[in-house]
Amino acid sequence: MIALLTDFGTDDPYVGIVKSVIYSVEKDVEIVDITHNIEPFNILKGAFYLVSSYKYFPRETVFMCVVDPGVGSSRLPIACKYKDYFFVGPMNGIFDMVFEEKPYCVDISNHPYILKPTSNTFHGRDIFAPASAWIHKLKSIDFLGPKVNYQHSLDIPKPVLKDNTIEGSILFYDRFGNAITNVGCTKIKYAIIEDKKIEYFEYFSQAPKNTPGITCGSFGYFEFFINQGSFKEFSHAKSFKLIL
Amino acid sequence: MIALLTDFGTDDPYVGIVKSVIYSVEKDVEIVDITHNIEPFNILKGAFYLVSSYKYFPRETVFMCVVDPGVGSSRLPIACKYKDYFFVGPMNGIFDMVFEEKPYCVDISNHPYILKPTSNTFHGRDIFAPASAWIHKLKSIDFLGPKVNYQHSLDIPKPVLKDNTIEGSILFYDRFGNAITNVGCTKIKYAIIEDKKIEYFEYFSQAPKNTPGITCGSFGYFEFFINQGSFKEFSHAKSFKLIL
Amino acid sequence: MIALLTDFGTDDPYVGIVKSVIYSVEKDVEIVDITHNIEPFNILKGAFYLVSSYKYFPRETVFMCVVDPGVGSSRLPIACKYKDYFFVGPMNGIFDMVFEEKPYCVDISNHPYILKPTSNTFHGRDIFAPASAWIHKLKSIDFLGPKVNYQHSLDIPKPVLKDNTIEGSILFYDRFGNAITNVGCTKIKYAIIEDKKIEYFEYFSQAPKNTPGITCGSFGYFEFFINQGSFKEFSHAKSFKLIL
Repeated sequence: MIALLTDFGTDDPYVGIVKSVIYSVEKDVEIVDITHNIEPFNILKGAFYLVSSYKYFPRETVFMCVVDPGVGSSRLPIACKYKDYFFVGPMNGIFDMVFEEKPYCVDISNHPYILKPTSNTFHGRDIFAPASAWIHKLKSIDFLGPKVNYQHSLDIPKPVLKDNTIEGSILFYDRFGNAITNVGCTKIKYAIIEDKKIEYFEYFSQAPKNTPGITCGSFGYFEFFINQGSFKEFSHAKSFKLIL
Repeated sequence: MIALLTDFGTDDPYVGIVKSVIYSVEKDVEIVDITHNIEPFNILKGAFYLVSSYKYFPRETVFMCVVDPGVGSSRLPIACKYKDYFFVGPMNGIFDMVFEEKPYCVDISNHPYILKPTSNTFHGRDIFAPASAWIHKLKSIDFLGPKVNYQHSLDIPKPVLKDNTIEGSILFYDRFGNAITNVGCTKIKYAIIEDKKIEYFEYFSQAPKNTPGITCGSFGYFEFFINQGSFKEFSHAKSFKLIL
Repeated sequence: MIALLTDFGTDDPYVGIVKSVIYSVEKDVEIVDITHNIEPFNILKGAFYLVSSYKYFPRETVFMCVVDPGVGSSRLPIACKYKDYFFVGPMNGIFDMVFEEKPYCVDISNHPYILKPTSNTFHGRDIFAPASAWIHKLKSIDFLGPKVNYQHSLDIPKPVLKDNTIEGSILFYDRFGNAITNVGCTKIKYAIIEDKKIEYFEYFSQAPKNTPGITCGSFGYFEFFINQGSFKEFSHAKSFKLIL
């Protein structure tokens, strides 16, 4: 299985072209879209969505992850093996949250299956898609290039514990306008955001309609929400406190 | 085949995660997206799109339908067999238009393949996806839980026939801005909406450009449209009359 | 393989219905979405995206391309064989850029597998999807109807070379706000758009942040862009000059 996570969007033919390149190598592979609608250049959101998704996939899944503002520049295109999965994309932080331990990576900037002529603006098609397809075929990354050390580069805000308070950050919003935070679920009394007290609820519809709440989201992190509304439209605060 | 109809959107990894859970059970199943862009909580639109789609699918298709504002609350997660199809989702009205006759349903709130720990906010992943995959594998629903009576709950506006007039309602708009109505196609002279007379046309481009019209839509219901324009931007009326 | 390029969007069930019709004929076909988000009626953009994509697909791929403002009118539904590919859709210009040489086409307006009753508003479901599935099954188009001559109809602006200058047009914008032009990549000194000089860069992130630039895009045509921004928001000019 090959899973795709990109900022290509679905308005243009970029995703279809990537898939056609993959299918030209591996006729019978299953391709699953995680999402193609990461905001252009929002590497942190891509990294969070990848770490939230990958464990549900079957072993040996190849994750091709391309949120790549530096395409064509000197940032390295890499392929990595980590636990029982493969990861293909630019070394720009997109894999930082998955690689809690040291992964095994190779530099694929000159791999033997690159499409020629190679575009400076669409490495998804020319470098990453054929690499992903061949990894899927051979269940290995060694043939793609020399070993390289993975460098973490993402600046992920960390929650701070002070006395009976956790200071957390809002990382981004999902399609429902829920605010995804950087604080893993734990027992809390309530939250404070912009001096307003926010109650904890077990699930969305437990909160009164149009009332902001905080709950344990499906990623295992706290989320602010408004029952049948959008928290994103209620507040643009980037930080908050949790009272334990 | 498993068909998905949800309000998850495609900006977040929710759909990809659901598919990965399904593929982890059933490696070779075909998964078809009906749509994931039902407006959050618009159960009526989901119900209409399901009834308009399901008959085109092969027999034994499993429809996983999750437009679920009450996720985590006491509304029942169910699986049903109806005619030659299977349906999985919350008992909140989403299946009301399909189930014209009594379906055979089971309560799957404690089914044996639920993912643990079970989130209160993402039953699509934890309850419905594994249920759908196992139904696909076993072609049965009995192993998932005890029998339950299906309760209709959707308030669907019905057209009213008076003398030579039908009073109808606009249910929602599609991507082209066409207004989908609750009146099945029949022979009419013309329509009246907000005191304006609207001509009937056989097809969209038969109407002069930028002129509103009414036609028999592909779902078998009347639709208001504007040739190469958007009826949604022309009128927000919720009701109209058809002159027979 | 069957590849889909339409203006159906993904908010409504149209794409899912098309796929279910295809799968009902061909259970094991691979279906790839090129895009369904061509702006309604933007045939030129559809034609450009098709010509930019199709060569990456495996031989014998069937391309079902439906951007069809004239659905139900007298424009012909056709199926064509061109090089080693099949193309199915309306004869309204959508295939103009692919068919540089004369294709072999048949009129499929009365083909033997049309769904009945046939809608006037959704030929994708009733005419094109079953035609595509049967072409995929039989690797031929002759059984679908009588031979017909393909007529080009799209008015594609052509670049004009004057002395050391090329006058070009902006055709449309992609998801990143990049302006796709009608000028194939060649060696230039710089560009002028609305009297402003625009530098050439080898790749996006070579340009200073928020600075407009021109580069050779992945389709092989020049593209105007803004590094980590949107050129579409910077300028709505439709024409420009390239200085050789």
